[in-house]
Amino acid sequence: MWPTEKLMDALGLELPIIQAPMAGANGSAMAAAVCEAGGLGSLPCAMLDGDKIRAEIGVIRQRTSAPLNVNFFCHTPPEPDSQRQEAWKARLRTYYEELELDPNAEAPSVNRAPFDAATCEIVEDLKPEVISFHFGLPEKPLLDRVKAAGCKVISSATTSAEAEWLAERGCDAIIAQGYEAGGHRGIFLNEDVFAQAGTMALVPQVVNVVDVPVIAAGGIADGRGIAAAFALGAAGAQIGTAYLFTPESRVSEIHRDALKNVRDDQTALTNLFSGRPARGILNRVMREVGPLSKEAPPFPTAGGALAPLKAAAEAKGSGDFTSLWSGQAAALGREMSSGDLTRTFVEEARMHFEKLSGN
Amino acid sequence: MWPTEKLMDALGLELPIIQAPMAGANGSAMAAAVCEAGGLGSLPCAMLDGDKIRAEIGVIRQRTSAPLNVNFFCHTPPEPDSQRQEAWKARLRTYYEELELDPNAEAPSVNRAPFDAATCEIVEDLKPEVISFHFGLPEKPLLDRVKAAGCKVISSATTSAEAEWLAERGCDAIIAQGYEAGGHRGIFLNEDVFAQAGTMALVPQVVNVVDVPVIAAGGIADGRGIAAAFALGAAGAQIGTAYLFTPESRVSEIHRDALKNVRDDQTALTNLFSGRPARGILNRVMREVGPLSKEAPPFPTAGGALAPLKAAAEAKGSGDFTSLWSGQAAALGREMSSGDLTRTFVEEARMHFEKLSGN
Repeated sequence: MWPTEKLMDALGLELPIIQAPMAGANGSAMAAAVCEAGGLGSLPCAMLDGDKIRAEIGVIRQRTSAPLNVNFFCHTPPEPDSQRQEAWKARLRTYYEELELDPNAEAPSVNRAPFDAATCEIVEDLKPEVISFHFGLPEKPLLDRVKAAGCKVISSATTSAEAEWLAERGCDAIIAQGYEAGGHRGIFLNEDVFAQAGTMALVPQVVNVVDVPVIAAGGIADGRGIAAAFALGAAGAQIGTAYLFTPESRVSEIHRDALKNVRDDQTALTNLFSGRPARGILNRVMREVGPLSKEAPPFPTAGGALAPLKAAAEAKGSGDFTSLWSGQAAALGREMSSGDLTRTFVEEARMHFEKLSGN
Repeated sequence: MWPTEKLMDALGLELPIIQAPMAGANGSAMAAAVCEAGGLGSLPCAMLDGDKIRAEIGVIRQRTSAPLNVNFFCHTPPEPDSQRQEAWKARLRTYYEELELDPNAEAPSVNRAPFDAATCEIVEDLKPEVISFHFGLPEKPLLDRVKAAGCKVISSATTSAEAEWLAERGCDAIIAQGYEAGGHRGIFLNEDVFAQAGTMALVPQVVNVVDVPVIAAGGIADGRGIAAAFALGAAGAQIGTAYLFTPESRVSEIHRDALKNVRDDQTALTNLFSGRPARGILNRVMREVGPLSKEAPPFPTAGGALAPLKAAAEAKGSGDFTSLWSGQAAALGREMSSGDLTRTFVEEARMHFEKLSGN
């Protein structure tokens, strides 16, 4: 039924549908369910330590023998900069006062770690069929080891220039991550967040400059989006936000409620929660401070000073200081299991392909 | 060949392809050529006086009997605010000095006029088959007169809430204008430009909330985009930037050269040139002042103080101060006549519909 099987062939998949890795919001349960349904389930590891990564992959391997994607960030951690952290805390001081929190209490450290030699050893050991990276690629020696282990490598491009860069370095497929996408933007070659292209414009331009299969991401939440992705020349679709509505999603009740009520004009790119631009549902701190602030310290440290505010507000049932990650098509979300959702995508896509041909 | 003829039926069209009205960049020649090829050509009137509107429609009617779209802005002109204009000039002073211009010279007035009783008389007299509005709709008495004249009425929605608003007021079709689109955004119900949705996310959400046909706009520049628009549930596509490459386009050589070299990551929304957000190719003044500046005076007055800078820079072959309107898919543009481009869109769309169905 698929207009092209280029992605399925390149990565050894049954379906050209990838569940987007969503650090903090999905683990082994969702990944295994999607894999079992024939999609490519993804385990996000940016917030997991080595033991946890091994444990989570172990759980998935017990449930399914289907190909699995394991996802890592590959940013360069910044030098500590206490002056900048203090300035950031000062910017947030009135919120600490309002919530009666001690602004001098030690802020919790933020646990987003980049792919390194230790995690590479786990990859070599457990050999996930697909490894996806965000924020570019790791250094060549590490990348060579991943490929030598037999893993297929994919990464996100937010511009056609990034797609060319990734293709030159040997990616087996490239995710064209449009402006609509929820969570962190993969942008890594420039900082012009305000110039990032929507999926409709980005996908064909990426397809025009690379030979490897292109996976469309951003704003896709049902069969219409999947059919549109193929129309644009993509050979697959990566879908994130729609999976946040499933029982396998680990989002908080506050986040889940926000997702159920968000419309197309209520998300924005913000750097407040991590230091890098990511799309989430507009809330109070985004409206009042940002959503993009030059004062936010570099990735991944910005969230530290917000963490006590988040905890205190959430205890009162408020998401005012929470990163409510969401893409722009959350309103198309439906509550069903991750497996059923994957199967529904296939049925809907089939229907739309037929409709487009007048059959 | 079209998956749905809903738009063609609603507006009486031969093809579900609309050439976007581009004030300053297209006139009767492009509109007539597109109409003759079966698409819906559009005459933008925001920068034309009554005599010129009559003359341009006259030229088109002599060349073709096909349905025509005539486009108007419907903003409320702001009260004069000399203090704000002075502050804006002060912000731009260093550029005046650099270009050796007198900052105290009277800035030329900007000629973007809203739809009013006088233009409504022209519409009643000449009865274009379709009238499209930008920035919402005119007041009800004027809108009633347009409809009573037998014209079909369409307008742009940048959010699903705007689409509902337009549908409730009797629009015969609604343009879902995604974030990718070049030129002025139609946004009129809120000012959250940073929360505007891409075409991929916007179109299905608009389709879900209105019964009238939806026209996808933004990031569409070839048959892939047209096929994707239909996949998303649209019943037609409005295409702008791709027509700027035609001989019928009235853009300057500087603008044309910029369009030929722009990539997907080199446009941004800016309010510097008019006071309202519009997408153009990133140039020096956008990088240095904006691209979105709170100092820019309200629409349509912001461009006045930039006009002398634009003229002086252009005389030296530079587009540093020029509004280089462009959508995010300019790199897909091709140099051919407006008629051939329209016919090419149809052939490409047909090919992609067939490809998607596996035929």
